[in-house]
Amino acid sequence: MRPARPAFIAAQALTPFIGKGSPNFIAKGHPDYGVKENPTLEDHIATVIRQLLDDNGIDPSLIQRGYIGNFAGELFSSQGFLGAMLARADERLAGIGCARVEAACASGGVGIVGAIEAVQAGLDVVLVVGAEVQTTVRAREGANYLARAAHYASERSIDDFTFPALLARRAKAYKETYGLTDRDLAHFSVKAYANANRNPLAHMHTVKMTLDQAATASDSNPNILQNPELHEHLRVSDCSQVSDGAAAVIIASETGLERLGRAPQDCVQLKSYGFCTNPLGQVNDLLRLDTAASAAAEAMQDGGITPQDVQLAEVHDCFTIAELMMYEAIGFAEPGKGIDLLRSGDTSLEGSMPVNPGGGLVGFGHPVGATGVKQAAEVYRQMKGVCGDYQIQKDIHTGLTANMGGDDRTVVSLVLENVE
Amino acid sequence: MRPARPAFIAAQALTPFIGKGSPNFIAKGHPDYGVKENPTLEDHIATVIRQLLDDNGIDPSLIQRGYIGNFAGELFSSQGFLGAMLARADERLAGIGCARVEAACASGGVGIVGAIEAVQAGLDVVLVVGAEVQTTVRAREGANYLARAAHYASERSIDDFTFPALLARRAKAYKETYGLTDRDLAHFSVKAYANANRNPLAHMHTVKMTLDQAATASDSNPNILQNPELHEHLRVSDCSQVSDGAAAVIIASETGLERLGRAPQDCVQLKSYGFCTNPLGQVNDLLRLDTAASAAAEAMQDGGITPQDVQLAEVHDCFTIAELMMYEAIGFAEPGKGIDLLRSGDTSLEGSMPVNPGGGLVGFGHPVGATGVKQAAEVYRQMKGVCGDYQIQKDIHTGLTANMGGDDRTVVSLVLENVE
Repeated sequence: MRPARPAFIAAQALTPFIGKGSPNFIAKGHPDYGVKENPTLEDHIATVIRQLLDDNGIDPSLIQRGYIGNFAGELFSSQGFLGAMLARADERLAGIGCARVEAACASGGVGIVGAIEAVQAGLDVVLVVGAEVQTTVRAREGANYLARAAHYASERSIDDFTFPALLARRAKAYKETYGLTDRDLAHFSVKAYANANRNPLAHMHTVKMTLDQAATASDSNPNILQNPELHEHLRVSDCSQVSDGAAAVIIASETGLERLGRAPQDCVQLKSYGFCTNPLGQVNDLLRLDTAASAAAEAMQDGGITPQDVQLAEVHDCFTIAELMMYEAIGFAEPGKGIDLLRSGDTSLEGSMPVNPGGGLVGFGHPVGATGVKQAAEVYRQMKGVCGDYQIQKDIHTGLTANMGGDDRTVVSLVLENVE
Repeated sequence: MRPARPAFIAAQALTPFIGKGSPNFIAKGHPDYGVKENPTLEDHIATVIRQLLDDNGIDPSLIQRGYIGNFAGELFSSQGFLGAMLARADERLAGIGCARVEAACASGGVGIVGAIEAVQAGLDVVLVVGAEVQTTVRAREGANYLARAAHYASERSIDDFTFPALLARRAKAYKETYGLTDRDLAHFSVKAYANANRNPLAHMHTVKMTLDQAATASDSNPNILQNPELHEHLRVSDCSQVSDGAAAVIIASETGLERLGRAPQDCVQLKSYGFCTNPLGQVNDLLRLDTAASAAAEAMQDGGITPQDVQLAEVHDCFTIAELMMYEAIGFAEPGKGIDLLRSGDTSLEGSMPVNPGGGLVGFGHPVGATGVKQAAEVYRQMKGVCGDYQIQKDIHTGLTANMGGDDRTVVSLVLENVE
């Protein structure tokens, strides 16, 4: 889709993504343990909205619609109906229409689609929040909650860690077909952590990952799956983080930008988008992210670009194998050649086309509903040069996101252009 | 909002709404008990989609987007990510963008807003499904799940039956201010059941309700709340039903209608809509549904009508007091006078402006995520004269819906016009 009425990201905000392993997360050993609590889902939502409004001088009374991407607030936080949570952050948001959108890990991306289409319907200023809190329960229970993003009745039994197992199934198939090694996959993990180490908002900001660590199962980097066929195909270092956090953007029409007083240099245009879904539990090809391929192709075609035009990509590396497969789905690499692209260094922070320079889902973290919004915010931040230590050292004109829900069951892909 | 690009309901489908008390619901005493299971959430979704496609001769490959309204699939059915469930009903739906939208009991209404706005973005044929299954757990546990539509942290403790208590709080305040009696409220229940008795799709199709039964607490109609201040203000007969069921509509542009081969007499125009949200846990006025008032006013103003122009309304009677307050919020009655409108008979099936002729949430049933879609489908069905025993015996040109989420925290209101 290409918006007939131009739509822009006018502002963004991110909370730190936190969880086990991040120094500002309160757990055993933390000085505040037993004294303070970690922020709740409501806290994260309120924080990111206030930050968005305050840091960017946004008058909330100009906002006409709110969407929030969230996957499992009912389970992790006993709270659904999060559209009606937005105005608790600022009473001037009361009265506008707000709703939650959910497409598992693509919830945030769907929120952005909703906002773009609200602009097509005539609204001028729309708020999109993405938020998730997942650290309220133990990992195994959380994995059961997240399995609601698979076809639960038929896929839950694959492993206690259902989602990691579904992606390990892809890793296994890919290794068997293309001869990919664990050490190959470890390179993705190393890149993610290295980028996150430069990003103070990242969950893994202070955690180091060497190639040897990532390439080898060990007590500190175990194979977590019980499923005997998949056990060896996934280590902790392959996984995205169980994070809490929130992201927010303002999406506006040209009229909206005027009302907000935002100058062109404060804006990134949402040039085009692709939005595709394939049925739960019916993966046709373990070697390829078909839905991602369709969504990215739609976005690029409607945006009038090719994969070669992309200067920065934020792709959904829920597991290391997913980043590799995203390279091939989007068309950055031929089938079977994703690893060559990574090894070339082109997708590193200093490369010709950085992918996930903030650390991606493996390094930056993955608060499920926030991720799709965070990806768009990250492209904005890099284009506007506000990324500090992880800033790409060249001008970025064209960026692409690919936000995946479940095992490639829904993908939202955006083509973004810097307004200079 | 008034869609610049005209949008139409081109087709609809409803499953029977079932649950405790309906003869086709399998429970103790039913001949199939222990032999068959009731349909799952996936079954309801698949059934309503197939019925929509088959009964209306819709080619699913023409559908370009799918939304599904659902409140709590993760809890009642261990299944989220329902957008990716749609194409399991028909493989020709694979590939299009689909997502779940959620605004508690207004989830279905928000799905319709999403579809109208997708049409404004240039799509021509959009599917909206609403579905909920709630009978998988006992009532008290279900009440805890549904409390996720309140501000759980601050409102859950009001009563084990949190939502009934929130609305009983309104009933109490209204009685104290306006002198409303239990017998007054009982009239709403009697109307709902009487209408449902004529509607074979209704949950309460075979259950009778007399004024004396509804007006008096008894073993068969107990006051269910434990909260001592609210206990006397809510009986079972005041409550909507804990139902399973699904509803679906096709929303199309004029181009879409041509592609589908739908004649004008198969269509109802979505003339305008209002969509408003107020913050969770912050009800300003117990006597008035402020959010409903705003949403309905927006819809009517943008549709160029007044309350007096409405010939048929589907309003959100999650409890009897809500129907009364809806009369006043929409402007059918002055504050404090809702009961007079009911007693006048004008809102009965034979009245000048029938409200909830199929039985509403109290009689037809309330599968949460389905309700907003069902309301729109019901207006369509009455306009097209397919309601059989509960068909209104006059031509309907203008209808209105008001679909409420939570305790008046989000409301979607539609103005619909028959295309003749």
